[in-house]
Amino acid sequence: MQASQRISTILGGGSDGWEVFNRARQMIDAGTSVTELTIGEHDIRTAAPILQDMHRAAVGGHTGYASIPGIAALRDAIAARVTASTGVPTTRDNVMITPGGQAALFASHTAVTDPGDTALYIDPYYATYPGTLRGVCAKPVAVQAHASDAFQPRASDIAAAAKGAKSLLINSPNNPTGVVYTRETLEGIAQVCRDHDLWLISDEVYDTQIWEGEHISPRALEGMEERTLVVGSMSKSHAMTGSRIGWVVGPAHVISHLVNLATHTTYGVAGFIQDAALFALELGKEFETEIAEPFRRRRDLALAVLASQNVVGAVPNGGAMYMMLDITATGLSGEAFAYGLLEAHHIAVMPGESFGAAAAGHIRVAMTIEDSAFEAAMKTLCAYAESLTTQA
Amino acid sequence: MQASQRISTILGGGSDGWEVFNRARQMIDAGTSVTELTIGEHDIRTAAPILQDMHRAAVGGHTGYASIPGIAALRDAIAARVTASTGVPTTRDNVMITPGGQAALFASHTAVTDPGDTALYIDPYYATYPGTLRGVCAKPVAVQAHASDAFQPRASDIAAAAKGAKSLLINSPNNPTGVVYTRETLEGIAQVCRDHDLWLISDEVYDTQIWEGEHISPRALEGMEERTLVVGSMSKSHAMTGSRIGWVVGPAHVISHLVNLATHTTYGVAGFIQDAALFALELGKEFETEIAEPFRRRRDLALAVLASQNVVGAVPNGGAMYMMLDITATGLSGEAFAYGLLEAHHIAVMPGESFGAAAAGHIRVAMTIEDSAFEAAMKTLCAYAESLTTQA
Repeated sequence: MQASQRISTILGGGSDGWEVFNRARQMIDAGTSVTELTIGEHDIRTAAPILQDMHRAAVGGHTGYASIPGIAALRDAIAARVTASTGVPTTRDNVMITPGGQAALFASHTAVTDPGDTALYIDPYYATYPGTLRGVCAKPVAVQAHASDAFQPRASDIAAAAKGAKSLLINSPNNPTGVVYTRETLEGIAQVCRDHDLWLISDEVYDTQIWEGEHISPRALEGMEERTLVVGSMSKSHAMTGSRIGWVVGPAHVISHLVNLATHTTYGVAGFIQDAALFALELGKEFETEIAEPFRRRRDLALAVLASQNVVGAVPNGGAMYMMLDITATGLSGEAFAYGLLEAHHIAVMPGESFGAAAAGHIRVAMTIEDSAFEAAMKTLCAYAESLTTQA
Repeated sequence: MQASQRISTILGGGSDGWEVFNRARQMIDAGTSVTELTIGEHDIRTAAPILQDMHRAAVGGHTGYASIPGIAALRDAIAARVTASTGVPTTRDNVMITPGGQAALFASHTAVTDPGDTALYIDPYYATYPGTLRGVCAKPVAVQAHASDAFQPRASDIAAAAKGAKSLLINSPNNPTGVVYTRETLEGIAQVCRDHDLWLISDEVYDTQIWEGEHISPRALEGMEERTLVVGSMSKSHAMTGSRIGWVVGPAHVISHLVNLATHTTYGVAGFIQDAALFALELGKEFETEIAEPFRRRRDLALAVLASQNVVGAVPNGGAMYMMLDITATGLSGEAFAYGLLEAHHIAVMPGESFGAAAAGHIRVAMTIEDSAFEAAMKTLCAYAESLTTQA
């Protein structure tokens, strides 16, 4: 018996770009000590007070079916947070709780595309994007950002692909590049969306990790509130990756459709997790800063190491827990460099090619290990790159 | 901006059959005391030891991204449980963990249908079934079971609808009828699936609630292992509705596709919830019997009340937490009877019409309130029915 066409082709075929990652895991399984700079996850666990609150809620009886759109208090808290940060008046009717940001991405694209519709996304991209678009039976079309533009996408490139498309998916602060889209970039994107009647899906899960510049939610730009769905999550901002809780913010009529979809896909999110998320949000900005702080520190360490050499270039990472490094001076592809670094020094990084064609000749470093080990790995990485240029 | 066609039509239009339920909730909100026999959920909370184990797991650090197919120990435990109960050798490669049974239903249909494919289901049906099929862009086609057959579906009726269809969704023990499909019924269904090359999606979430007869998983029937996806859940068996944890059991090649789908829809299930589910499963059959026991008791109470009168008929409910009652002797529709009972006696039941056309002239009673209140409500319900027949 054959599985459906759509599920059989969700991966899109060909290399998935995760070979270096898998090779590193094999080495670890075989007993080799490997420094992994591959994983987009904090090196801390969810904070104890959040888990205590979750337990309090569970023992208190919040273990039955929860309200499918999400509990009112959590929706209110997210609406207030969005109103405060964007200036766009937002109420609970604009918010639906999902079991994580990935579920929010899937639901959002289900809400705005029908099978066969073209859905745009920016390359380089987070690994699940094209598969998410294929998963909803949309036709994924990548628009390349350019290393020469520091990976700020060009409105003209998006416009060239926009004819007949239904939606555009963007992500700022960006995984994998760490780039924060400028106001100019976002105004250009908004203009294309208005001109071509596109829905904008804005994945803002790194919005609390800003090292330079400011995070601007495109929902706040002129004429965008009615055509933007914002994906949010507690994963990165509150180190709650494993709790699987996120949300979609958008027009009330779309949210009401999303609630109908949730009734038929997830049937809501555990009430005790929602209570814990509310508790975590109420810890305020100070807590979010505390969770983000290690990445800010490590970025500073990395920039200092990079400043002391001139082989490896840095893409300006204004945010997120990643750094995209330009290793074209070594003459190697990102993949060859990553393999070489893994074999020679047992340091695992992701080839830029894992995230699409636009980041070829780059590697992504996740700043997700302890400071001194991270700094040492950055030094080794740069020395290795230098050795490649002097070998010839 | 318009939402997509598929999400806008997920509810299918027209009455959703929940008007009586909503009216009861309005009355409650307005301060009226209403006896609700509408809800498919235990009147107890998740047991404290399970919640303690969940907390232990969370505090122990299982708060990061969990393995997307599910943690190996839980998949192994479910595989062992299925092997023991069905005799079909089942390993972790046949099991994927989902955030609840509803997510398993959605994923299963995504795995076996492409947009536009016909997907069959049996009427009367659980409320989300047709919307789930529309949600995956399949064409839902109902096959009616008949009250005169005690709602055991006829193979000939399914065969008549099977030409060109891709899948059939069944549910035994059944919500809303409480009927347990006989071996003869299931053999007939299996024959149709083999003859017409149908996938069978078997929703078995009530498999621990058997009052008479035996639960047979159709995956164990000849030639069915390769074409059956079984949906399971901890919700009903372990009173863990709010934890949102379930699974799909099926052929390994389909499970590997489902893992790819999960990567793009849910990104796995909270590790601490998976740990708690494993702990709950390891409590063994005795615990499952304890959770099922109140419904067995209340069914006995209801049967005694029904035996003392001859207006209201009972559909033989061999399992599940529901009882479908035939009120055609009153001359009313299920909906009119339910409205009347609500207004006259503040007792809320679900009209059979809420679950499709086949259960017209019936009402569904959920046995989910405390025994003495349940017995009193059944007596009032029968007296009300009697009063309708003598009024004329």
